[in-house]
Amino acid sequence: MSGGGEAGVLVQALPYIRQYRGRVIVVKYGGASMINEGLKAQVIQDIVLMHYVGIRVVLVHGGGPEIDALLRRLGKESRFVRGLRYTDGETMEAVQMVLCGKLNKDITALIENSGGRAVGLCGIDGATLKARRLQDEGGEDLGFVGEIEEVDTALLDALLDRGVIPVLSSVALGLGEDAGRSLNVNADTAAAKLAAALKAEKLLLMTDVKGILRDLADPGSLIHTVTLAGLEALKEQGVLSRGMIPKADCCALALAGGVKKAHIIDGREPHSLIVELFTDRGAGTMVSLN
Amino acid sequence: MSGGGEAGVLVQALPYIRQYRGRVIVVKYGGASMINEGLKAQVIQDIVLMHYVGIRVVLVHGGGPEIDALLRRLGKESRFVRGLRYTDGETMEAVQMVLCGKLNKDITALIENSGGRAVGLCGIDGATLKARRLQDEGGEDLGFVGEIEEVDTALLDALLDRGVIPVLSSVALGLGEDAGRSLNVNADTAAAKLAAALKAEKLLLMTDVKGILRDLADPGSLIHTVTLAGLEALKEQGVLSRGMIPKADCCALALAGGVKKAHIIDGREPHSLIVELFTDRGAGTMVSLN
Amino acid sequence: MSGGGEAGVLVQALPYIRQYRGRVIVVKYGGASMINEGLKAQVIQDIVLMHYVGIRVVLVHGGGPEIDALLRRLGKESRFVRGLRYTDGETMEAVQMVLCGKLNKDITALIENSGGRAVGLCGIDGATLKARRLQDEGGEDLGFVGEIEEVDTALLDALLDRGVIPVLSSVALGLGEDAGRSLNVNADTAAAKLAAALKAEKLLLMTDVKGILRDLADPGSLIHTVTLAGLEALKEQGVLSRGMIPKADCCALALAGGVKKAHIIDGREPHSLIVELFTDRGAGTMVSLN
Amino acid sequence: MSGGGEAGVLVQALPYIRQYRGRVIVVKYGGASMINEGLKAQVIQDIVLMHYVGIRVVLVHGGGPEIDALLRRLGKESRFVRGLRYTDGETMEAVQMVLCGKLNKDITALIENSGGRAVGLCGIDGATLKARRLQDEGGEDLGFVGEIEEVDTALLDALLDRGVIPVLSSVALGLGEDAGRSLNVNADTAAAKLAAALKAEKLLLMTDVKGILRDLADPGSLIHTVTLAGLEALKEQGVLSRGMIPKADCCALALAGGVKKAHIIDGREPHSLIVELFTDRGAGTMVSLN
Amino acid sequence: MSGGGEAGVLVQALPYIRQYRGRVIVVKYGGASMINEGLKAQVIQDIVLMHYVGIRVVLVHGGGPEIDALLRRLGKESRFVRGLRYTDGETMEAVQMVLCGKLNKDITALIENSGGRAVGLCGIDGATLKARRLQDEGGEDLGFVGEIEEVDTALLDALLDRGVIPVLSSVALGLGEDAGRSLNVNADTAAAKLAAALKAEKLLLMTDVKGILRDLADPGSLIHTVTLAGLEALKEQGVLSRGMIPKADCCALALAGGVKKAHIIDGREPHSLIVELFTDRGAGTMVSLN
Amino acid sequence: MSGGGEAGVLVQALPYIRQYRGRVIVVKYGGASMINEGLKAQVIQDIVLMHYVGIRVVLVHGGGPEIDALLRRLGKESRFVRGLRYTDGETMEAVQMVLCGKLNKDITALIENSGGRAVGLCGIDGATLKARRLQDEGGEDLGFVGEIEEVDTALLDALLDRGVIPVLSSVALGLGEDAGRSLNVNADTAAAKLAAALKAEKLLLMTDVKGILRDLADPGSLIHTVTLAGLEALKEQGVLSRGMIPKADCCALALAGGVKKAHIIDGREPHSLIVELFTDRGAGTMVSLN
Repeated sequence: MSGGGEAGVLVQALPYIRQYRGRVIVVKYGGASMINEGLKAQVIQDIVLMHYVGIRVVLVHGGGPEIDALLRRLGKESRFVRGLRYTDGETMEAVQMVLCGKLNKDITALIENSGGRAVGLCGIDGATLKARRLQDEGGEDLGFVGEIEEVDTALLDALLDRGVIPVLSSVALGLGEDAGRSLNVNADTAAAKLAAALKAEKLLLMTDVKGILRDLADPGSLIHTVTLAGLEALKEQGVLSRGMIPKADCCALALAGGVKKAHIIDGREPHSLIVELFTDRGAGTMVSLN
Repeated sequence: MSGGGEAGVLVQALPYIRQYRGRVIVVKYGGASMINEGLKAQVIQDIVLMHYVGIRVVLVHGGGPEIDALLRRLGKESRFVRGLRYTDGETMEAVQMVLCGKLNKDITALIENSGGRAVGLCGIDGATLKARRLQDEGGEDLGFVGEIEEVDTALLDALLDRGVIPVLSSVALGLGEDAGRSLNVNADTAAAKLAAALKAEKLLLMTDVKGILRDLADPGSLIHTVTLAGLEALKEQGVLSRGMIPKADCCALALAGGVKKAHIIDGREPHSLIVELFTDRGAGTMVSLN
Repeated sequence: MSGGGEAGVLVQALPYIRQYRGRVIVVKYGGASMINEGLKAQVIQDIVLMHYVGIRVVLVHGGGPEIDALLRRLGKESRFVRGLRYTDGETMEAVQMVLCGKLNKDITALIENSGGRAVGLCGIDGATLKARRLQDEGGEDLGFVGEIEEVDTALLDALLDRGVIPVLSSVALGLGEDAGRSLNVNADTAAAKLAAALKAEKLLLMTDVKGILRDLADPGSLIHTVTLAGLEALKEQGVLSRGMIPKADCCALALAGGVKKAHIIDGREPHSLIVELFTDRGAGTMVSLN
Repeated sequence: MSGGGEAGVLVQALPYIRQYRGRVIVVKYGGASMINEGLKAQVIQDIVLMHYVGIRVVLVHGGGPEIDALLRRLGKESRFVRGLRYTDGETMEAVQMVLCGKLNKDITALIENSGGRAVGLCGIDGATLKARRLQDEGGEDLGFVGEIEEVDTALLDALLDRGVIPVLSSVALGLGEDAGRSLNVNADTAAAKLAAALKAEKLLLMTDVKGILRDLADPGSLIHTVTLAGLEALKEQGVLSRGMIPKADCCALALAGGVKKAHIIDGREPHSLIVELFTDRGAGTMVSLN
Repeated sequence: MSGGGEAGVLVQALPYIRQYRGRVIVVKYGGASMINEGLKAQVIQDIVLMHYVGIRVVLVHGGGPEIDALLRRLGKESRFVRGLRYTDGETMEAVQMVLCGKLNKDITALIENSGGRAVGLCGIDGATLKARRLQDEGGEDLGFVGEIEEVDTALLDALLDRGVIPVLSSVALGLGEDAGRSLNVNADTAAAKLAAALKAEKLLLMTDVKGILRDLADPGSLIHTVTLAGLEALKEQGVLSRGMIPKADCCALALAGGVKKAHIIDGREPHSLIVELFTDRGAGTMVSLN
Repeated sequence: MSGGGEAGVLVQALPYIRQYRGRVIVVKYGGASMINEGLKAQVIQDIVLMHYVGIRVVLVHGGGPEIDALLRRLGKESRFVRGLRYTDGETMEAVQMVLCGKLNKDITALIENSGGRAVGLCGIDGATLKARRLQDEGGEDLGFVGEIEEVDTALLDALLDRGVIPVLSSVALGLGEDAGRSLNVNADTAAAKLAAALKAEKLLLMTDVKGILRDLADPGSLIHTVTLAGLEALKEQGVLSRGMIPKADCCALALAGGVKKAHIIDGREPHSLIVELFTDRGAGTMVSLN
């Protein structure tokens, strides 16, 4: 590529950088891009670049597959309540070890190693996320699974002000009967609630699909932009796949909380974050209020 | 106890509070007080009280027994190099999960629940501790075990300035061939090096012994205070037990780095931190420069 | 007392410290505890301890007996208007000399000597208290006696932010015809108005009685807590003694101004401030809004 | 006077204002200008004007005549040690009442009333001045008379930063055997030591003489400027009057401590401070290092 | 003049200084005082004195005569649209060179040389003034002439906070079709809009007339003060001269925007700014809301 | 170009961004890139991009050709002293009008319009550059031409801290006989002295040549990097062209003043600043200390 060409790409990013600098963008990191080493390295580079151009990046991650792997290695058998896994004390311990101990610190180390300044946290730290035990619809206990009731962004704001990238795993501080204990919370929902509390410009949900497709069988049917009302209509029309519905709900939750745009992007694409943010092409499906 | 009596106790703490407020005290937490639930609750209370009277508390912890337990559950067999456990990748993963995931966040949750503001970290966060792979004396590799080479207190200072208690587990960010990876470091040494870098007033090493005994068989032979030179002499005279020698070396390391006093205290005693800091009786053995 | 016992007392103070740290507590200091040397030393210790655990303490004092003593020594005869002493220029000079010169600076010196940082002020300094000459009900002049009309907390806030304990005597800057002169104001009222302006958590009025007694002859009839409405009822029922009525009115004034709780405590008891604040027993009568 | 004329005067002050703004000037206030009501009003105006043009003004005052008057009214007889008054407890109490209670707060009220922001202090407040009991040359005790050993300008700096004029009376916090008590210190010396500690641009000593006269009988023999060496020579030649010697020593003390210029000015002249600072004529005698 | 006399003048300025210190005063500089070297030197002195006594001064200037002179030298002929000069590209270039290049920097240099700290700016800098191309009433284009639509005081506030005097020429950053270009704006209007945006205490318009005269032929008919309503009445009654009407409109614009007082003063008088601000006589006509 | 391609370019810039963010880079803007509209637009984009990725950019410019054009239009004939143009008053006025009025504000407007925040200044503003009249070697006067003697970066530092890009033209505030007047200074030297005073990471001199060529006739003989000693050698060997010698001297001046690297780059190349800073290819000749 010619020098002018390289410089041209950088310069074409200018209007996007201008739009996002100084703003908060929450990235929900997960799926293939968290497992494939090549994609992982690219996500880290993208995050550091976002940070360098002045975006206040917050990274939220879960880690289902790694939790399952540890439970298997521990010979732990799962009990299910209406299809949902019951999280007993031992399972919760495994969740916490994998999310807060392994994945969170590994991501933090990679960012530090790529020239960013990162701090690995979970919702317990600084009481950032407080949750109450979730009641199953049938009133049955699901164990140490929580629903986020309070978000305190003081610690995150202070770290962002200092030029630090907070990396947050989806474990919250319990309320009520679980005071002083940890509860497992849904990472997508945590990202959406944090984005709302931080008055984020954008929520980027990294998934393993192209975005919202009008026809699942046709990748060409990707819906590039949709309003909140349009999303609701798609849901009612049955266009959304079963896996897409919770993602769509997260977007709705973030937008209702004041986030400007929510994006469902394809984490399997190289540098999907940068492509979405800094090029004219964008990536996946963007949901906006209207 | 009469009201005057209670008030009297509080008032007798005044000169100690005056001496320590605004100063950094690093507590190495470990041993029985980390396992026994009653003692653990007392340590948390003590830490919060120290925090309330204006001490800048930093808590450093390891967690050997819990690591062993997990390795056993995972059916992991250990290889030994001249008596030291070889830390392969799988072992390191277990170390990180237990220290950074389980123990660190559990302690943080307890402090938050007791009215303190805490953030659970390891040496990776903010690149607080950077380590290089430790060479065995025989030149043989010990795996992912590191020796701390750089301490950056910027993140800890910022958190302390904001009235937060940093809780730190003994995992460091690798240097050289281990760049971007995590290394296991000794928690006592980490505490001593952090105390020196933070220009701490005191390093408190919580142990499972009374302190330094002149005669191991006689609890009455406790040495209450000793100088660095005196400690060296005791070591040469063979008075120090094999377990005590690394603790003594840590005290020496901290004092050489500018820490005012280092204490070996008995974590099995109720409220040993408060007794040491705020009562005339003190606890265990105090090592000072001269 | 055993070490655990001492530590236990300190730890039992934790919930109270948590509740009060960072909050303003205004102490009206007066009566026996200002004359008896032993009690005085205890009050100073209590104030310094409150300061050490993070309470923003403001000390307000009067000094009637000392003023009387100086007037007697000066051979000054008093004129009375409907039972109230007429404060002529010479009397006002004596008031100012005793309050601002003797008592205020002596208290400040004692706090400085006990490890606190204190600054002795009166309402003139920084125009903290501005007063207008009080009209006798019969319309007769009472001399240089003022009623507080304006409270400016800027100086106190700045000193509290710097970790200083303001010690304030009850002399105000005159308004209107007394512009540029000093006026004598009631110390209880000054404390209540300051507490309101500072949005204090508590006003503690140190008196020479047990608190509000349902039966003056029976110390066992102490009313531990009462609402503002209840206090009004007690006043109407004639339960309040003549000396208690102005104290009760001060409590009402403070609560109406937004102070959370007002306490009438017995300054003759050892460490009455600490007992009230940091033990389960409390002391005297607490008045709350409802 | 014509408008241009008035404006001309203001404009002629420009180079002086430029020179002094942002600098500390310590004024030792005393003598006739503290007793005569007209002169007192002018001093207050001058101080406020200095403050308005950005000078960091510190006012230090004594008050000998008023102390004598109170002692007389109290029927207190004085004991003398080699010609110096012995300051017993009762005398010290009178000193403190007059200086810290009466004069200090009256000056503060006048400044507040003239549009300045002032805070009345003594050396006890914020432990600004710490003194040790002065030994008589003959080794005999002089009572509660102190020599300043430590100056802490933290409180004054903070007040000056906030645009406040500190007004300081010459009472210090005792050291050693007098810890927690107050000691009487010389106001001229206090002003000189404060000026040095504050790195003042100027020390202005207000006196009741024209300045240093070469011939006491001839007002035309006023020495306008003299170096420190020249002053020493005048002293050796016996030109300095007995009353002038301590003033000259104070100037020397200030200059030795780093103050740029020390002035002996005639407080009996109208607006002597402003004339000295802002007009070409100057006033009295200026002492400079060389 | 006697020393007391000089000091007296300074002291008489005290109440005015008290009133204006810390407040913003916008001075529109123009007319004879910008051409006559003696008057120019006086304006600079006045500005620096205002600055020294704590006024936040902002200087706005135009420069019609100098622009005309340059256009003449360049042999540039002017085209007129309904009596208004058409500002083509070449003319705009000359306007910008004279205002931003010559006059603005010359004034800045003079203030710097007189002991003030100044920064020369125009509306482009920090996007302080944004303007849209002005439409002639007849809909005909006037060229690069703009009407101010947006005022951003962030840069001016920051400079004033740092003790800098901003000197601003009447060139604005274009909006719409003129984005990235400069537009010529009316300096009186710019001063009025800036005064409103800065919530100024006063707007001082320096002119070449005595103020508003009831009878143009009679200098004794000067109207010293007038309300906004009164000004409107004068306009309707035809009392205002053709040259005075835009000045009066500027005063109305400023007052409507929240400025306390607007003054039309005679820049041909010596030290007219100081006479107006700091003496009892005042100068010219003061317009107030009511 | 594919999305991954675009993202790849952005990511390849990461190590360079990491290296420069938070550092000062001084760009001397001039030559063809200041005249050609297309190149000018690219320079503005490059400057804004540098600003967005956290570089503290300072732009210094001259403007010889535009000054010549104005002088020609004004019919001004030039007098020469030993080959150097004599800068009389009229010429200096033209210099100031073109540099400070036209070019400086035009550049500032373009940056503001491209999303950067800029302030157009010259050395007079905030007394950033103070100069003394330059003596011709033959002792003959060159008129208003100055040599920079003092650099005060306070204003630039404050603006950079606020996220503003200072744009500075090469006019300085006179010293000595020229106090209060402006002097023309060499823009290359101004840039070098500013870079040194600002402790810049880099000085980038934009020129109309490829860089330093070993053989002027062979563009392939470009010297990519050279040490200060090497540069001196090239000068002695006569390799440097007459036009290159002052550029080389500027580089030497900057390096001697502590600047890390000085670059001579080809402003005729598209996006030459970005190519130099953010791509592996670099541009022109880099001079380093060793």
